[in-house]
Amino acid sequence: MRIVVALGGNALLRRGEALTEENQRENVRIASEALAPIAEEHQLVISHGNGPQVGLLSLQGAAYKPDEAYPLDVLGAQTEGMIGYMIEQELGNLLPQDVPFATLLTMVEVDAADPAFQNPTKFIGPVYEEAEARRLAGEKDWSIKADGDKWRRVVASPLPKRIFEIRPIKWLVEHGTIVICAGGGGIPTVYDENDKLHGIEAVIDKDFASELLARELAADLFIMATDVDAVYVDWGKPDAKRIKRASPDVIAEYEFPAGSMGPKVDAACQFARRTGKTAAIGALADLSGMLTGDAGTTISGDAIAIEWH
Amino acid sequence: MRIVVALGGNALLRRGEALTEENQRENVRIASEALAPIAEEHQLVISHGNGPQVGLLSLQGAAYKPDEAYPLDVLGAQTEGMIGYMIEQELGNLLPQDVPFATLLTMVEVDAADPAFQNPTKFIGPVYEEAEARRLAGEKDWSIKADGDKWRRVVASPLPKRIFEIRPIKWLVEHGTIVICAGGGGIPTVYDENDKLHGIEAVIDKDFASELLARELAADLFIMATDVDAVYVDWGKPDAKRIKRASPDVIAEYEFPAGSMGPKVDAACQFARRTGKTAAIGALADLSGMLTGDAGTTISGDAIAIEWH
Repeated sequence: MRIVVALGGNALLRRGEALTEENQRENVRIASEALAPIAEEHQLVISHGNGPQVGLLSLQGAAYKPDEAYPLDVLGAQTEGMIGYMIEQELGNLLPQDVPFATLLTMVEVDAADPAFQNPTKFIGPVYEEAEARRLAGEKDWSIKADGDKWRRVVASPLPKRIFEIRPIKWLVEHGTIVICAGGGGIPTVYDENDKLHGIEAVIDKDFASELLARELAADLFIMATDVDAVYVDWGKPDAKRIKRASPDVIAEYEFPAGSMGPKVDAACQFARRTGKTAAIGALADLSGMLTGDAGTTISGDAIAIEWH
Repeated sequence: MRIVVALGGNALLRRGEALTEENQRENVRIASEALAPIAEEHQLVISHGNGPQVGLLSLQGAAYKPDEAYPLDVLGAQTEGMIGYMIEQELGNLLPQDVPFATLLTMVEVDAADPAFQNPTKFIGPVYEEAEARRLAGEKDWSIKADGDKWRRVVASPLPKRIFEIRPIKWLVEHGTIVICAGGGGIPTVYDENDKLHGIEAVIDKDFASELLARELAADLFIMATDVDAVYVDWGKPDAKRIKRASPDVIAEYEFPAGSMGPKVDAACQFARRTGKTAAIGALADLSGMLTGDAGTTISGDAIAIEWH
């Protein structure tokens, strides 16, 4: 099988943990332990989040020379190199030395007219007091929003339209290469009026970018690995129930949290609908179980009754 | 032809220029103008330096949380993403939109017993007063050396033994992809006693890594692009002479500055000797002339008299 696994930010960094190299390595190592058995049996393509890492690099840049801090597209490129390197090395250490690996810088085209640009929603970088946030917003042409009792910059999260490197990714997979790509949802880029491509200050949802990747690669299975073991109905309530299997039509009748599980369910439904193949959402530690449908939440097929764990 | 072009650090950042995103972009744009005509006619693989960029990222990390600053291998991975992104985007903007590109994270194996580790020579990161440098050296197990009247950290520059991603690079080139790889000489890695690969605090000479790349790709031509228009004998003296063409045996009779032109001449000679093909050293702006042997210094063939410009 050809399998695309999207590693959630929380699969690479446990909530609340400091973003040191050691902590990142440790989590990448844990993720690699889960990925290695899949890599041994199947064609594997890995994408990953980069939210905390971009946040850290923007703090580092601001601490040194704030006026020369790099824009989001460049920071995104830096994190694709850094995280890809750690995954390539740690997963490589668990597999035979002759398994080929490639970590690809990935640019993703978005639509400059995407309505998301009218309503930026993704928090980026440090928190500020309101006055400081307003000053920076004026100075740097940022959008800002309250985040609890502090303020933060927000950027748009437009939909991914095209993965520029999709042909090289496909060629490498066909040669048996384990490919790491589309980190952080890919670097958002747009064509300007002169048909020149450039980066844009935005963040593409990693799950939607990974769905596009899986679809364009004709993957048989698209897995979103996170720190929750399945999609829950009534999450956090006493009668919360874990979905084992559902069709896109059936699961669409439920609502899920907009900031976390909602986009994953939407991406899974989109993949199942457009390809007729299977998408799965669940915990990193349960990857093998998700391949057989025994763990996590599997979304595929036509309308049937929902199955619970 | 299959051509490997190594872009020198000075081809990507003019001496003395601040390392802002705008300056880097501008220089990458100039480099891309020189590369585009080659990309249109030949198979092109691009490598590049990263010295100033690694220096900047290490300053940013030290300014934020010095105790959590990332090690050199991780910073190298970040710069491979960042610089590769800029080259891929800017060069892509000068070529038809259907030309495939790939920027590959590149790890290079070095020998832990390389004698270079006994004599670290490469300056890295900020300058310090002597006392501060000595304190940091004790605390972080650094080697330090005087650099003018200040002190700096030095790391080893071991020889590259193996490019791990060479097969993916080759497959992509065979598919007509313009590949950007081996940035900064690649990330130096070693196998430990348990056969696990990990990064090591060192810097691989970009020209030697690029020579290995060109040789393993069976390149027809290996070009080192810098900010000097040729190899000079008696550089800086009134009777300095520019070499147009020489064989490895003949040019070996001259001496060149150890920190700059020396390693380039050595890498060119090694390529010419081991492959029987041609290596060239010259200015970025003269790339097209170097293809025909009209510009720069061309090194190939058997012992013949040196030709001057």
